[in-house]
Amino acid sequence: MSPPDKRLFTPGPLTTSRTVKEAMLHDVGSRDTAFLSLVRDIRRQLLELGRAAPPHPYETILMQGSGTFGVESVLSTVVPDTGRLLILANGAYGERMARIAARLRLPHEVLHTPENVPPAADTVCRRLADRPTFTHLAMVHCETTTGILNPVEPIGRLARESGITFIVDAMSSFGALPLDLPAMGIDFLVSSANKCIEGVPGFSFILAQRDKLAACAGQSRGLSLDLHEQWSGFESNGQFRFTPPTHALLAFDQALRELADEGGVAGRVARYQANHRALFDGMSRLGFRAFLPRQHQSPIITTFLEPGDPRFQFEEFYERLSRHGHLIYPGKLGQGAGFRIGNIGRLDESDIQALLTAVTAVLKEMNLPIPVPAPAPAPA
Amino acid sequence: MSPPDKRLFTPGPLTTSRTVKEAMLHDVGSRDTAFLSLVRDIRRQLLELGRAAPPHPYETILMQGSGTFGVESVLSTVVPDTGRLLILANGAYGERMARIAARLRLPHEVLHTPENVPPAADTVCRRLADRPTFTHLAMVHCETTTGILNPVEPIGRLARESGITFIVDAMSSFGALPLDLPAMGIDFLVSSANKCIEGVPGFSFILAQRDKLAACAGQSRGLSLDLHEQWSGFESNGQFRFTPPTHALLAFDQALRELADEGGVAGRVARYQANHRALFDGMSRLGFRAFLPRQHQSPIITTFLEPGDPRFQFEEFYERLSRHGHLIYPGKLGQGAGFRIGNIGRLDESDIQALLTAVTAVLKEMNLPIPVPAPAPAPA
Repeated sequence: MSPPDKRLFTPGPLTTSRTVKEAMLHDVGSRDTAFLSLVRDIRRQLLELGRAAPPHPYETILMQGSGTFGVESVLSTVVPDTGRLLILANGAYGERMARIAARLRLPHEVLHTPENVPPAADTVCRRLADRPTFTHLAMVHCETTTGILNPVEPIGRLARESGITFIVDAMSSFGALPLDLPAMGIDFLVSSANKCIEGVPGFSFILAQRDKLAACAGQSRGLSLDLHEQWSGFESNGQFRFTPPTHALLAFDQALRELADEGGVAGRVARYQANHRALFDGMSRLGFRAFLPRQHQSPIITTFLEPGDPRFQFEEFYERLSRHGHLIYPGKLGQGAGFRIGNIGRLDESDIQALLTAVTAVLKEMNLPIPVPAPAPAPA
Repeated sequence: MSPPDKRLFTPGPLTTSRTVKEAMLHDVGSRDTAFLSLVRDIRRQLLELGRAAPPHPYETILMQGSGTFGVESVLSTVVPDTGRLLILANGAYGERMARIAARLRLPHEVLHTPENVPPAADTVCRRLADRPTFTHLAMVHCETTTGILNPVEPIGRLARESGITFIVDAMSSFGALPLDLPAMGIDFLVSSANKCIEGVPGFSFILAQRDKLAACAGQSRGLSLDLHEQWSGFESNGQFRFTPPTHALLAFDQALRELADEGGVAGRVARYQANHRALFDGMSRLGFRAFLPRQHQSPIITTFLEPGDPRFQFEEFYERLSRHGHLIYPGKLGQGAGFRIGNIGRLDESDIQALLTAVTAVLKEMNLPIPVPAPAPAPA
């Protein structure tokens, strides 16, 4: 008997349900009709989750690889050499879009804000007045770098008013935070199998405004990540162009069923919010301070600052929690020391309470006072 | 109770063992030490399978996505703008390399041979005398388009004598057909998790000559498929740069264990050869003719020509076999009608006999004589 799996308090891969994993106990033919009908069904359900099902003119494209592969497939396919892309960045995933754009040599600019500050609509509006004209605007919905929630809705309105194609990386929010693509003016949304829908990793998915996607034939800089050609493949014979991760798709199909059983987006976000509240309150009682102001904090993942005590070493804290059966996540702050705790995946308040009990025990093991000392002020 | 899975007589995804699938019943943290040690171990074992373990100067890089993603990562990363790539093509996968090269705007030429003819060393030798000088040569080992086996060894010798970097797509051969990278002069070899190693789909892997790989920093045309940066990630902290398909990696670790238990490459190829022989003999007795001359036929997948009888319709043949629990594969010939039957994956001679029994039954259901009539001559 192997010990039970550690609980994953990370931004993904996540703890998934037993039944999601058991769905992978089958081998299916990637061109067989049963599998093709499963793929078709997944594509349809994802449109519904984004409130973009017919008659709304949207399409779902599944793309092999991690979420970043999905983001690259969108940027590579939709921004023409004659276009100009504005990227809003306040964390590692916004910066990653900028790295992708640079590698692909897309004409682009980056508008930075600090990691704890969402982009302001009026700043974006002024920037959009720049010449030459921007044709595309890309942003991250929930930056898992910090857990910050960025204002997709007002910025989408700006994009629409300016006639600009709007691209949203909703990797760690889609499925839990309500997103209405037509209403929000989102033309391309990217998310991943192993986030709030609670599948296993192996592919990302893109919801795309049909006319805008159809205009992108032949534009992709590479073959594997050609979003338009991948879509054409699904349209022509229902198949992936190249071998799909069949088992991850079986798991995802089951995960979508369990999302519906939980009450869809509304049910899921209620659980995540309860998880987040229990985590935030419990960690606050132990003296930990969150990096973000409360109003910008998503209910997905939380960055806590390291206590101001030299006995607190993250590596040791992590290892000891791991021995208690809980995996947390290192920080990714550009400046200042923090660590992250995710509360998505197949976790509920009892898991959060178990984690808090373990944190309390580990602080004692490390001879730290409870509540822990306030974090040292960030270097200027 | 759901019915048992259909047997997959395809080039992959394949029928895998129950234990390989059961290895996916766990969720692991993608940055946790246990997972990183599993990744390290997989990378080492793959070097051993290619007879390229230390002190041979080779590295393994795992890449998210299908095998094509792996091929594109190699071509995109290793061929500089100042280089010149010769691609040998006698099937869809050679042509796919050409499509990738065209999309990435790599300086390249394609040397075509018919689908039933392996490239001849002397022709390749003459072509390598072309000016400007070729710097890279790429070929497919076993073309699953037809099942043809291409002569990697003599062509590798030519590449080495000419000081040219040699790239081999060994997607459907690595793990079953003996490949000795240092002896064969292979600098970059690409294969996939869900082929002869009998894992599940989700990633490909690349074995790379270290010095040649190290010279490729910053050369990749995109971010996700940057082979050099992916390697640097493994070297710096043991991690994938972007979310790995953790469950597919757990399955692959188990698949490698089962490959070793079977006696490694020698044991596996023995089973595949026995499978192939039983398939070939049985289908021949039923009157089917193979597309390839015997001496070029791999023991991986076989193309059979459609019988010369209008009552034989592939779609109906396929559907009826599927109802009997057997999935075969459509043909991919550029010219002439054929279909394919793979014999790799967790299949043995009893599975082949069961398939032959089903083929016999289906021919009767379709009112076809046994033996079936010889195929119509190919159109001129």
